Formats: sequence, structure tokens, C-alpha cells
Amino acid sequence: MIEVPPPYRSFASDNVAGAHPAVLEAVIAANEGSAAAYGDDPYTAECEARFEALFGRPVTVRLTFNGTGANVMAFAAMLGALRGPVHAVVCTEWSHAHMDEAGAPERILGAKLIDLPSADARLRPEDLDAVASLRSGPHHAPPGIVTITQPTELGTLYVPDEIAALCARAHELGLLVHLDGARIANAVAALGGDASALRAQTSEAGVDVMSFGGTKNGALGAEAVVVFTPELATGIDHVRKQVTQLASKTRFLAAQFNALLDDDRWIALGGHANRMAARLHELTHDIPGVRLDGPPQVNSLFPCLAPHMIEPLREWSFHWEWDSSRGQVRWMTAWDTTDDDLERFAAGVRAAAMALPHDDPA
Amino acid sequence: MIEVPPPYRSFASDNVAGAHPAVLEAVIAANEGSAAAYGDDPYTAECEARFEALFGRPVTVRLTFNGTGANVMAFAAMLGALRGPVHAVVCTEWSHAHMDEAGAPERILGAKLIDLPSADARLRPEDLDAVASLRSGPHHAPPGIVTITQPTELGTLYVPDEIAALCARAHELGLLVHLDGARIANAVAALGGDASALRAQTSEAGVDVMSFGGTKNGALGAEAVVVFTPELATGIDHVRKQVTQLASKTRFLAAQFNALLDDDRWIALGGHANRMAARLHELTHDIPGVRLDGPPQVNSLFPCLAPHMIEPLREWSFHWEWDSSRGQVRWMTAWDTTDDDLERFAAGVRAAAMALPHDDPA
Amino acid sequence: MIEVPPPYRSFASDNVAGAHPAVLEAVIAANEGSAAAYGDDPYTAECEARFEALFGRPVTVRLTFNGTGANVMAFAAMLGALRGPVHAVVCTEWSHAHMDEAGAPERILGAKLIDLPSADARLRPEDLDAVASLRSGPHHAPPGIVTITQPTELGTLYVPDEIAALCARAHELGLLVHLDGARIANAVAALGGDASALRAQTSEAGVDVMSFGGTKNGALGAEAVVVFTPELATGIDHVRKQVTQLASKTRFLAAQFNALLDDDRWIALGGHANRMAARLHELTHDIPGVRLDGPPQVNSLFPCLAPHMIEPLREWSFHWEWDSSRGQVRWMTAWDTTDDDLERFAAGVRAAAMALPHDDPA
Amino acid sequence: MIEVPPPYRSFASDNVAGAHPAVLEAVIAANEGSAAAYGDDPYTAECEARFEALFGRPVTVRLTFNGTGANVMAFAAMLGALRGPVHAVVCTEWSHAHMDEAGAPERILGAKLIDLPSADARLRPEDLDAVASLRSGPHHAPPGIVTITQPTELGTLYVPDEIAALCARAHELGLLVHLDGARIANAVAALGGDASALRAQTSEAGVDVMSFGGTKNGALGAEAVVVFTPELATGIDHVRKQVTQLASKTRFLAAQFNALLDDDRWIALGGHANRMAARLHELTHDIPGVRLDGPPQVNSLFPCLAPHMIEPLREWSFHWEWDSSRGQVRWMTAWDTTDDDLERFAAGVRAAAMALPHDDPA
Repeated sequence: MIEVPPPYRSFASDNVAGAHPAVLEAVIAANEGSAAAYGDDPYTAECEARFEALFGRPVTVRLTFNGTGANVMAFAAMLGALRGPVHAVVCTEWSHAHMDEAGAPERILGAKLIDLPSADARLRPEDLDAVASLRSGPHHAPPGIVTITQPTELGTLYVPDEIAALCARAHELGLLVHLDGARIANAVAALGGDASALRAQTSEAGVDVMSFGGTKNGALGAEAVVVFTPELATGIDHVRKQVTQLASKTRFLAAQFNALLDDDRWIALGGHANRMAARLHELTHDIPGVRLDGPPQVNSLFPCLAPHMIEPLREWSFHWEWDSSRGQVRWMTAWDTTDDDLERFAAGVRAAAMALPHDDPA
Repeated sequence: MIEVPPPYRSFASDNVAGAHPAVLEAVIAANEGSAAAYGDDPYTAECEARFEALFGRPVTVRLTFNGTGANVMAFAAMLGALRGPVHAVVCTEWSHAHMDEAGAPERILGAKLIDLPSADARLRPEDLDAVASLRSGPHHAPPGIVTITQPTELGTLYVPDEIAALCARAHELGLLVHLDGARIANAVAALGGDASALRAQTSEAGVDVMSFGGTKNGALGAEAVVVFTPELATGIDHVRKQVTQLASKTRFLAAQFNALLDDDRWIALGGHANRMAARLHELTHDIPGVRLDGPPQVNSLFPCLAPHMIEPLREWSFHWEWDSSRGQVRWMTAWDTTDDDLERFAAGVRAAAMALPHDDPA
Repeated sequence: MIEVPPPYRSFASDNVAGAHPAVLEAVIAANEGSAAAYGDDPYTAECEARFEALFGRPVTVRLTFNGTGANVMAFAAMLGALRGPVHAVVCTEWSHAHMDEAGAPERILGAKLIDLPSADARLRPEDLDAVASLRSGPHHAPPGIVTITQPTELGTLYVPDEIAALCARAHELGLLVHLDGARIANAVAALGGDASALRAQTSEAGVDVMSFGGTKNGALGAEAVVVFTPELATGIDHVRKQVTQLASKTRFLAAQFNALLDDDRWIALGGHANRMAARLHELTHDIPGVRLDGPPQVNSLFPCLAPHMIEPLREWSFHWEWDSSRGQVRWMTAWDTTDDDLERFAAGVRAAAMALPHDDPA
Repeated sequence: MIEVPPPYRSFASDNVAGAHPAVLEAVIAANEGSAAAYGDDPYTAECEARFEALFGRPVTVRLTFNGTGANVMAFAAMLGALRGPVHAVVCTEWSHAHMDEAGAPERILGAKLIDLPSADARLRPEDLDAVASLRSGPHHAPPGIVTITQPTELGTLYVPDEIAALCARAHELGLLVHLDGARIANAVAALGGDASALRAQTSEAGVDVMSFGGTKNGALGAEAVVVFTPELATGIDHVRKQVTQLASKTRFLAAQFNALLDDDRWIALGGHANRMAARLHELTHDIPGVRLDGPPQVNSLFPCLAPHMIEPLREWSFHWEWDSSRGQVRWMTAWDTTDDDLERFAAGVRAAAMALPHDDPA
């Protein structure tokens, strides 16, 4: 048993954090009087203008409730623009759409997901060549979309040139590119920290459509689908409604993003989470029984722990197993992680490490 | 009880008939040696050439197993060409796709069918105006296709100008037009009896895609999807495979159509069925207890029968109830109906009419 | 042009209203520290306990983002319990699921919606007999669910005995019953005004699953699926995820309902909206040019207006056309409608009525 | 260029073969007079009785047009019996349903296919343990079915005990088992050669539903879905219609199977194909430039050829590439392969081997 007091905030995920105070204030401010439903309100108009300013170009933005909804809606819009059969979606074996959305894409879209192996959850341009060959003959589900996650589900990053190369190869092969940016703030903070860093890894790299995350970065619950390739926005309002992601009181989704996008707050919050993860790495990487790779690129650590540490530590302050075959767990920081949380958590790890290995007499 | 001998062939439907001898001969002839699978064989090539000759223009033809498969495949190809959301299919309340395909279109395509009321199972151009208004706002399933049946499920016909007017209005409204020609042979025989009559009511009228029936007209089981609007054929081989309608031994489907299309045999068979229905009308319309409208346009009669006739007649020679609330049944003739069948059946109807009304002591 | 000042709050819909202050306070209170994601948090536990107390029996409750999501999720759970083919959903021609969800049920569930005509948007037990006959033979989509809306989309109500009779007939026919209670608060306020009134028209009437609305009644955006028939809750967490309705920060949906359910606030808010509609009826029903049926049962009026009134009034204070062929519009009150809003709006109606009929020289 | 004459029959696949004469005769015999549509005919009744006799127990049999249709229908029936969400289908990376059906299962069923790696296209009981863990939490598509192919797509076989062990483990884990027997005749011929060999590897091993192939084994085009677990047949006629696999003239599908099942003809035909493949192995395995594993288990060989042989040989007598990275092709024998075909083909292989390696000056 670990005797030190647990951290006030959990390291289980960035979605256990609450909302940033500015988000709440914006929601309260948007609660004045009537506002037309379904996005025909000034808060949504402001939100769209903010996204256009952020990308420095026209985009089509539609807000959704959650990340699965954003991804499914993005795929629906893209598949709706591909002629003929239902095309397949190419992804990695780690991708959230493939592993963590309960088959929602298949169920709602009727599309096959082609999951490619990848040690670091990243795709390379050459990975696309093999799947492109599936186009020949009528017997395979023809690939139509490739989706990448930035940062990836393993906490790795693509640099902008890598995304650009992947998009170029995809487009040569007739594939559209989707970027799942559920944690895009962490990637942008890590790779430049301003709007130009965002553009370099998305719109300017050739991405066609992205899911832009708010929920894990200080929102109550709000995501955005951003369409860069104009023809993929055809009928997008119908698409959003058909996948159950149209809010009647859209103003309250828009207000959340307006607060996050204001003065680059979203980047600041993502950067804070990244720094907290780096600091957690410093505090724990040399604890005996903890095996950690180099400093994290974003806000997650995937330590392998000595067997006797795992259960006591999870009981003391919950976090997820990652690969139980090698004692790997996941620790995540968030926009609201504090130094005190870090120090308490590191103290607990240290206590767990020093405890005698657990004997299970049964 | 009816004492006269029943007809050798049933009047239950044109799908209770077998295959024409020429169809069987063609299948036997196609059974020589190896032939590449999935349509890459000389019989299929001949079939495609025959359809192009029939329509006097380039078309894309793909063979399917059955009528539901043909309709679903046609809709799939058309929906695949409509951008954005899944569009709705507009039809009449009588349409086979809506009433008799067990929800296959909804299940496979995820599309809403909008069934419009129609006393005679025909649509008029003005019927489309109301549904076109469903396009406004994101809350309705946007209509994308209108499907009509020729001849209709009630045995009525559109003249070519009516189809042309409907297509023109549909296209003005941005709707694609599908024609379900499961019994197209009967319509062509009734409206001119040659290839030009076919063209007038399909390709030249502005139809985008049609289902062309073989099964009810002397095939073992074969239908064709004929695409007149070239861009709707994009990816059609994948579409056919995805809806489970790709035959490996396609030569045997092609051989059936080659026999039917040879020397306008299909029109002759349809015309025979029509004449048999007209003759059945002559033989039965003045029998007491039988209420029949004027002579049939194609190969079906929908008589209302005196209550005491219905069950004895159906037990004697099965046919389907149509509207039990008014004693209506359906009698259909087929390519193989004989004069002897007609005479026996009419004798049975007469016997049923003359029997004392059935007393049900319970 | 109407010269009097428009109301501060719109009569366009109850979804143009904001959130009740108590809802906002609850959201703010729930924003303390970490909370496990996906519903494993104390706010959600409290919410479930509150629903069980409300119904006075065990129920399974799952929160969703919006009404389309709640309906689709409810249907998904119910269809998932029906063996064999995808069953059809029986509804009225007015039902939200059929008319106003953009085909989401068909797209996501692959199910046919069978829309029955109904002058008052209500179904009667005998309406089910005809559709039940569709079960015979494999050619029809077999009905599996009947969904009713309480109050209906036309502002009418079922009394509890009517719902009980419908449920009894449905269950005899092997159909499950869903109740769309997007505005259930208005029905409960109109039919007794306490928890027992709720139970009488839902769980005690035999409803299997209901959608319980929060959004139109003072929430930011939150609905609940309440399952009364335990076996329909099998796998419900997977179902919710598959239809994209699982919130990661579920605590914020739960907090909204906790505030609404507290001390029957939801019923009080629904009752307020009803009273405001009744008062609007009093203020406007005798204005020349306004044709209104008797007092409203819940919170909507469907007046027919003299032609010259319609456009000026909608430009002055927006509301929806309902049936333009007879000049019918819809006015809705909400939980936040004030006497001042009513008086201003009535004054505007009166001004529109007294204006000279609009001459359109074109 | 290869100078020897090519074989009369192709080694491209067993689906390039025609139909057995007895099949044609049965179809001709079934073409007498009227027969009720949709399976209510004596040929279909005979077919069902023959299948029950073959398995020595009650089974539910439904005929389909092709193999994709049979698999999709089988999965649909099984998924329809699993409560709650749409469950996933576990298969190998080689499985026809995953690789060669163009995404039809995903499109029609909305189900995820989980493709497990397997060097020999076979699954082991322990492979199921990992996927079963996907059941925890709502975030993964819950596995509900495991499908195996016998013989596999790589020409390997499960012995009955292996299938029994797999079924036992699957059932322990709550998974249903489907067996894709598109070439079941070849497996039965290889593993005993009589009905008891069939039963041992299907019904008696614990398989819940199988696809029973006719098309590759002498039919014109006919497959059967055989349901061993009675509750999985609920609503199966609706299911078949919904997936477009209900033939109106079912008698012609039934007649084909009646001919194949008569006097174990199907096993004799499968055995012939197997022997032809064994003989082809003998004739070619020691040709220089041909690398072949040991004798085939069923009717396919997967030789790796010297680079200079590949294109000339395929141009001379077409067959499919299998793995171009190592020069692997596939040769298949069929029920109609003759000794003359074998000798000619082997002579061609020998000629290709002896030709000078092809110089490509580009």
C-alpha cells in the first residue's frame, strides 16, 4: 500500500480534466436571451470566423459533440465525395477510429477500415503503395481515405514535412487525407507553438479534412470538423445531422471554441500539458522499477513498471494499462495538471517502487 | 369445391413460369470448356454488345441475379454519384422497392425511401415538387433519386411522353431517375413492340439507369442494370460486388440474356403474356361475381370477386390476394401461358361463381 | 412594417431558449478536479439514482447529446434485441424521427420507417393491425418497433390510458414501444404535474424505452435514453458508443439533468411554458386574421394567419411556417418566456393584422 | 514464347469450370410447368431433405446465388441473434470475407472484420483469447462471430479435432462459429470422403452456421447457408431477402444441389479436383525454376516460379499472381480437369522453364 497522499488530479487521461474557466465564462455569456438553433447564431458565426483567421484561409467548420462524432462525420463527408462504391479508410493498427470507436465508422458508414501495422503509430508514404494496389479488380474494398492521428495514439509526432509527403503520395494515389487532431493542441505546442505551426502540419501540408479537438484541451465537450478541400463540404449540414452530431443549441459548442481560440489559449493549454509530461518524465524516469524512453513529445508517458508496482499504483491513483504483457501503463497530463499533482504522483511512484514486491500467497 | 380440372400452369405470377427452351439451350451451349470468371468471358461481351445494339447507343450493362439485387445495385450506383449525405429515393406507395424488397434498400444503402401516394402506381411531374422542397435545411433526408416502375405494380403504363416529362422535371430538380423494368418486356410489347418503343420509354425519355428484367420473361434467373448516364457507372464493378450481385460464372447469366435478346424474343414473350391476359379478361369479365375494369394494359388482372368465390378458387388454383377488404385478387399470365390454361382457368372461375355462397356455420 | 418593439425572446422554438441558471450552476459545480470519463463519475451515478427515484423502479439510463442521438440510440438498442432481420420502425407521418432527423435512423440503423397517416399525429391501437400483417412472407420489412411522440409534433397529447392501450396492442403483436419524450416535461405538466403523471404515461403504461428530453426544457444540451424493459439494455454502452453518443466528460451531461430533476424543476419549467402558450392563445385568438383552434394542450400554437400578416410578422420576429398552403405557422413558448415577451408578441400580431393587406404589384 | 499447345481447360480457378452435365439435366428437368416462387416448390423441399439426410439431423438450409451472398447472409443471421450492438467478425488476414468480398460484409452489415495474422490461413483456439479481451469497456467493437474457411484460402486444412477445439474455445468465449465452405467438397474428399467426414468437420465439431459451396464444384451458380444452431435461423427468410439473395425461381438453385448431392456426386467431384492437383504437383515439382512445397492437400498449388517464367506462362495460359514479391502464382484444378489438361500444362511449364531468361532492355 502506498502511504503518500494521491494527487488531486488524475493522470488517467486528459479527458478526466474539467473545463477551463474561460470556457465556462463563455458559455455563461452565450446564455443570454434567444439564439437561433442549429448554428444560425452569432456565436457560431464568430467561431467560424475565428477558425478562418486561425488557418488564414477559407475553411468550412462544423462543430460536433465528441471525437468519434467528428471522425465519423469527417469520413462521411469524404466518402460522400468519392464516387461509386463505399471506399475503405486506411489507418494504423493504433488509430482511435479503428481501435477505440467501437466500430462506429463501420456501423454508420458501412466502410472497411484497413489497419496497417506501425511500431510508432505513424504511417509513411510507402505504406500507401501496398493498399493502393487493392484498387485493381472488383474484389477488394477500394481505399479512398487515409487517416492519420497527430499526435499519434502513442504520443509520437509527424513533422510537417512528413505529413506533406504523406499527403502528396496519397493524392497521387487518389486517396483523400484526414487528420485526427483530437489532441492537435499538443502537437502544435510541440512543433512551433503558433498558428503557423498549425497550418504547416494541416492545411499547408495538404490535409483535406481534420478533426480539431477541444474536449481534451479545456472544453466541456466540443470538437470541430474543419474542411480544407471545398468540394468535400458539399451537403455537410445534412451529413452532420445524419450522423447525429447536429446540436440544436449550437451556440454553446461555439462559445467553448471561441474561448479556446481566443488569444491562442488552446495552444497555451496544450503546451502546459506537454511541459507537465516532460516534468513528470524528469521526476520518474530514474526511479528503479520504472523504464521510460526519452522525454515525451507531447502529454503522454508509456512507462513499463516492475510487476510489484503496477496494481498498488493503479489502486492508489487510477491510470490505464497499455500493454500488460510487458507491464506497460499510460500516464497522461492535462491542461490543468499542477506541479503539486506531479510531485505527489512522483512520490507515489517512488513509494510503489520501494515497496517490497507483492507476494500473492494464493 | 370446384370440380373442373385446374390449369396446368398457374396464374399466381409470371415468376412461377419456367425458362424458355432457347434460354436453356444457350446455357447448355455456354457450358463448353473454361471461361474466365466475373464477366471477362465472350458470352458477357456478346451480351453487352447486344444491349448496346438494342439501345442503339453506348450503355454500361451489368448482370445481376434477381430484381431486388438489380434495384439495390442501381440505387447504389446512383447514390454513389450523389455528393454529401445519403440521399433519399422517391417512389410510390406501390413500388416493389418500397413494399416488396423487405427493406433491402434501407438496410444495404442506409437510404430513406419516400413513398408517395398514387392511385394508379404512377408518378406525375408535379408529385416531385413537394418532395424537392425537402432539400431545404439539414433536417430532411434530401431526395436524390426518383424511381418509377414500367409497367407499374398495378399493371398500368406510362406512355413515353409521360416518362420524358417526369425525367425532365426530375432533372430540373436535381433528381436522378431510375426505371424498374422488371417487366419491361410487357411494356415494350404493349407500346410499340420493337426496340424503338423500348428506347422511347427509357434512354430517349431521359432515364438515367434502369433495371431490365429477364427472370419473369423466360429466364432461369437473370436481370440487368443498364446505365445510360455514363458517370453513374463509375466504380460499378465494385458496387455490384459490394451488394453481393457479382456472379463468378457470369457466362451463365449472359447466355440467358443472349437468348432472350436474340431476334427480339424478349418482346415476343412479353407480347404473348399480354395477349393471354387480354384473352383472360374476355373470358372472365362478364362472369357474375367477377368485377373487372377494362382490358388489361399488360399481363395482370386485378378482379374483385364475390366473397363466396375467393377461397374455393384460390384452393383450386393458387393466386394472390391483393386487397382483401374488397375481395380483390391478382391473376397474372406469363410467357408460357396457353389457351388451354386460359380456358380451364375461366371454367374454374365460372364454376366458383355458380357455386352456392359458402356458409360458414362457425 | 410592424412598428411595435419585438419580444426579447423568440417564439420560433423552445430550442432557441438558453439554459436555466440552475443548470449552469450545476455544470460549474461539476467542474471541480478530475472525474473519470465515460460515465464512471459521481455526477452520473447521482443522475441514474435520480431517474430511478423519479420512476420509482429500476431503470437503465444513458445520457446523450441530442434528441436525434437519443432516438437513434433507443432504436439501436431495441433493434439489437429483435432477432433475425433488421426490423422496421412504425411511426406517424409527423414523427420527428421520420421527418426531421435527415434520415439518420435509416442511415445508421439500416431500418425502414413505416410512416402512418394521422391527422393529429397520434397513433391508435387499430393502426397497428395493418402493419402487423406485413410480417407474413419474407417480402416486407417486418415491423419491430412502434414509436410515438408525447406530446406529439402537433402539440396533441395521449392520455395515459391511450398509451397503455397502444402498448398492450403493440405487445400482443410482438412490437416494442418507444416513446419520444423530447418535450415530455410539457406533457407531464399538462397531465398531472408530478412524477406519478410521468409514470402513468410511460413506465406504467407499458412503454419499453423512452427518450427523455432536457435540451428544450432548460438544459444546455442533454437528453436521456431510459430503458424500462431490462433485456433491451443489453450491451447498451457499446450501442451508445457505436452511434457516436458517448460523451467522455459525461459529468457535464449528468450535472444538467441533476439540476433539472432536482425538486421537480423540469416539471415546473414545462408547466411554465404551457401556461405561457395558453396565455398567448388568450391574447391572440380573437385578433382578426388569426384563426386558432381551442387553447393549446402544451407549449405550441399552430395559427392560420391572414395572408398579409405572414411575412411582416416573420420578419419582425422569426417563427416557422408550418403549412404554407393554408397560411399556417407555429408559435412556441419556452421555459424562459416572460409576460413581457407575450405582450409584445401579441401586440405585434395585432399590428400585423391591422396593417393594410400587402399589395404585391408584381 | 511457349510453343506447346495450351490446355483446353484453364488452371486459373475452379470457378472457370462449367457445370456438370448432371446439374444441367436437373435444371432442365425442373423446368416443367409452373412452380411456386421463393422456395415453396418440390425441388427446394427435396433439396432441404437431402441436406438433412447428408447431415443426419435437422438443419435449416437456404439457397443463395453466390459465395459472397452466402457469407453475408450467414453473418446477417448470426449478428441478428446477438443482442445489443453490432458485433465484430473475427477472421484471418487471408479470409475471403475480409479480402475478396469488396467490403460487402462491412457495407451490408455495418460490422467490423477483425483480421488476425496467420501464416497458413488457419486460426488456433488461442488466437481467440486476445480478441475476446476486446469485449471489456464500450470502446471496442465486441467480437461476436469467428469465421474460418475449410479448406483455407491457402489450400490448407483443419482436421476435425482442430475445428472442434476452435468451436469449443469460441463458445466458451461467447463467440458463434461460421465455417466458409465454398470448397467444402475438396475438404471432405481429402478428409475421409463421405458424409461422416463432412459431419465431423462441421455439425459435429460445433460449427453454428456454414456456407456450403456448389458453384466451384460443378454448379452453374448455387450456394447454401446451412444453420446447425436452430435459434440462428430466426427470421432467416427475411434476412435472405434483405441481403438480395432470395431467388424467385428457387427451383433452379435447388435442382443444382439436388444433382450435386445425389449419390455423393459433390464429394466425387471434389476428390477428382484434389487428385488432379496432386498429379499436377507430381508433374511439375521437379521442373527447374519451379519451387513447390509438398503435395497439395486439396485442389490448389502455390508455386514460386523463376522470374523469366512468370509472364510467358501467364500469357500462354492465364492464372493468378499470388505474391509477386516472391514470384508466387496460384494454379487450381477443378471438377472437370482432365489428364490431357494436366499434361499440356506441365509441358508448358517445362517449356517456360527451359526458355532463356527474358531480357528486358528497358
